[in-house]
Amino acid sequence: MKWYVASGPDGDVVISSRIRLARNIKGYPFANALSDIQSKEVLEKCKKASQPLKLKYLSMETTPATKRQMLLECHLISPEMLNDTKNKAVLLSDDEQTSILLGEEDHIRIQCMKPGLNLSEAFSLADKTDDVLEETLDFSFNPRFGYATCCPTNTGTGLRASCMLHLPAITYTGYIDTLLATVGKLGMTVRGVYGEGTKAKGNMYQISNQITLGIDEQDSVKRLHELVKMVAEKERNMQETMEKESGNKLADTIWRSYGILKNARMLTSEEAYKLLSDMRLGVNLGILTNVPIELINELIIITGPAHIADKCTENTHQNRDKTRANIVRRK
Amino acid sequence: MKWYVASGPDGDVVISSRIRLARNIKGYPFANALSDIQSKEVLEKCKKASQPLKLKYLSMETTPATKRQMLLECHLISPEMLNDTKNKAVLLSDDEQTSILLGEEDHIRIQCMKPGLNLSEAFSLADKTDDVLEETLDFSFNPRFGYATCCPTNTGTGLRASCMLHLPAITYTGYIDTLLATVGKLGMTVRGVYGEGTKAKGNMYQISNQITLGIDEQDSVKRLHELVKMVAEKERNMQETMEKESGNKLADTIWRSYGILKNARMLTSEEAYKLLSDMRLGVNLGILTNVPIELINELIIITGPAHIADKCTENTHQNRDKTRANIVRRK
Repeated sequence: MKWYVASGPDGDVVISSRIRLARNIKGYPFANALSDIQSKEVLEKCKKASQPLKLKYLSMETTPATKRQMLLECHLISPEMLNDTKNKAVLLSDDEQTSILLGEEDHIRIQCMKPGLNLSEAFSLADKTDDVLEETLDFSFNPRFGYATCCPTNTGTGLRASCMLHLPAITYTGYIDTLLATVGKLGMTVRGVYGEGTKAKGNMYQISNQITLGIDEQDSVKRLHELVKMVAEKERNMQETMEKESGNKLADTIWRSYGILKNARMLTSEEAYKLLSDMRLGVNLGILTNVPIELINELIIITGPAHIADKCTENTHQNRDKTRANIVRRK
Repeated sequence: MKWYVASGPDGDVVISSRIRLARNIKGYPFANALSDIQSKEVLEKCKKASQPLKLKYLSMETTPATKRQMLLECHLISPEMLNDTKNKAVLLSDDEQTSILLGEEDHIRIQCMKPGLNLSEAFSLADKTDDVLEETLDFSFNPRFGYATCCPTNTGTGLRASCMLHLPAITYTGYIDTLLATVGKLGMTVRGVYGEGTKAKGNMYQISNQITLGIDEQDSVKRLHELVKMVAEKERNMQETMEKESGNKLADTIWRSYGILKNARMLTSEEAYKLLSDMRLGVNLGILTNVPIELINELIIITGPAHIADKCTENTHQNRDKTRANIVRRK
């Protein structure tokens, strides 16, 4: 099952967990210094090494822009792969829980996603994938510094763990600023998932580890797990307080968002995110009882601009907003 | 059936038609010059004369303020009766289509309301009521000037005819300004029903005749009928044009209004009027098909501040908005 149509542990707050491992093949310079021939060699080697995993190989050069944007909206490729497609590819599992990015900053980036707070399962999936590749590939590894990576912040474990969280109460109350500062001190980062500013679209945030050198992989993942667990607890408490303090006002906002989503004939992606975020909060507070949270998670992904554009025969702004509203209503 | 839960001819645009006859009893000064004893005599005479009509007698002095406000929201008493209740009363029929205001500016004001554009039926009902009263009462009448009334603009026929119209397209397109000017030249007036400014709350307007001296009753009513018929036709044309030109945007607005009304947990009276007005337009355009227009007409009345206050155990602002939303949702 695709990671975004399922719900996992602490799924009320944590949408998904992701583990990313950066690897580079011995005997080749980093991706940005590779010649065209070397690049193609690296792609070929990786493709071959991944055969036991039975992944689908997608060359970015031959994948249309809309499809690439859709992969990005599902968090399966990096933003860089949207514009620079040369000698880049991705290996995808059917359930889209595993994606291997090739020809990025590092030769290989293994990404494993699991719904909810489930870093350990994402980690073991990434670890197994890494083991399969390592059977035939020889990775650059230094006994003192660990895995060599292009960007020094990844050197060491070559691991980046992250969780996507839905934090409406922490955002609305302004506590997000305190959280941003605190998390930074712990060597982790928080950033909006769908937006650039501090106020993330749809109140979605990504918390990830930053320190990779000098701590072992398991420890790094455990620290992030504990932090996310704490943030989720805080979000729950703040949701309860918010509900108590707002009286009928919060319920009113949530029901209106539901009413608009269910009836609108045109929806921009920005408004859809906002309304879906309100609904998600409503489900968590038990205000909306007949809407499964997995459906909202799915809608957040499939109402993305490229997912909608893919369904439009005539790809105009108006038509996209209309199609988006139709899809939401049908669901 | 109460006039506001039914629909009549041209009911898509015309909510109701009203005929008002002003009468004064011979041998008494106008109401504002009556002594207390005279006032009570007039009330008693009228009450007695109305007995064959089997109307309910409500003394304004003993009727609570909320109930008086409710009568006003149903257009059954005048705004003046809200604050000045001394020696004032109203005689009401069960179906609330006939109300006789006593002790107003004139001794007697007979008001008859019918749903839709139906001035002739309202007129014959008022005429019959007038006849019954005249059997025992002697009205001031001058062969040259007609019925004597307190306010000179009513002298003559003592008749005032008016229609309540829902004109969303004429309002949104700004054509209302032209209409206001034109109607004035024809000796009629247009004013907002639920608001003071030019932009009437809920896009509801009242068009009424102004000239009473020198034209006979039937002619006066006929002229108003023709004007209202024309305005209704104009509104329909503009609704169609608006729908065509706006593409999906108008349908989107209407469906959102429907979604909010159906789901909100708090509604101010102002917002309720606006949303109900949008819905009414949606029904007329065939966009909303499962909502009877009579229900919207009824909601416009029963979501008025006093109707809601009457249903609240705790009469706070918040509680009223909550009760209003509950009533709308249930309906």
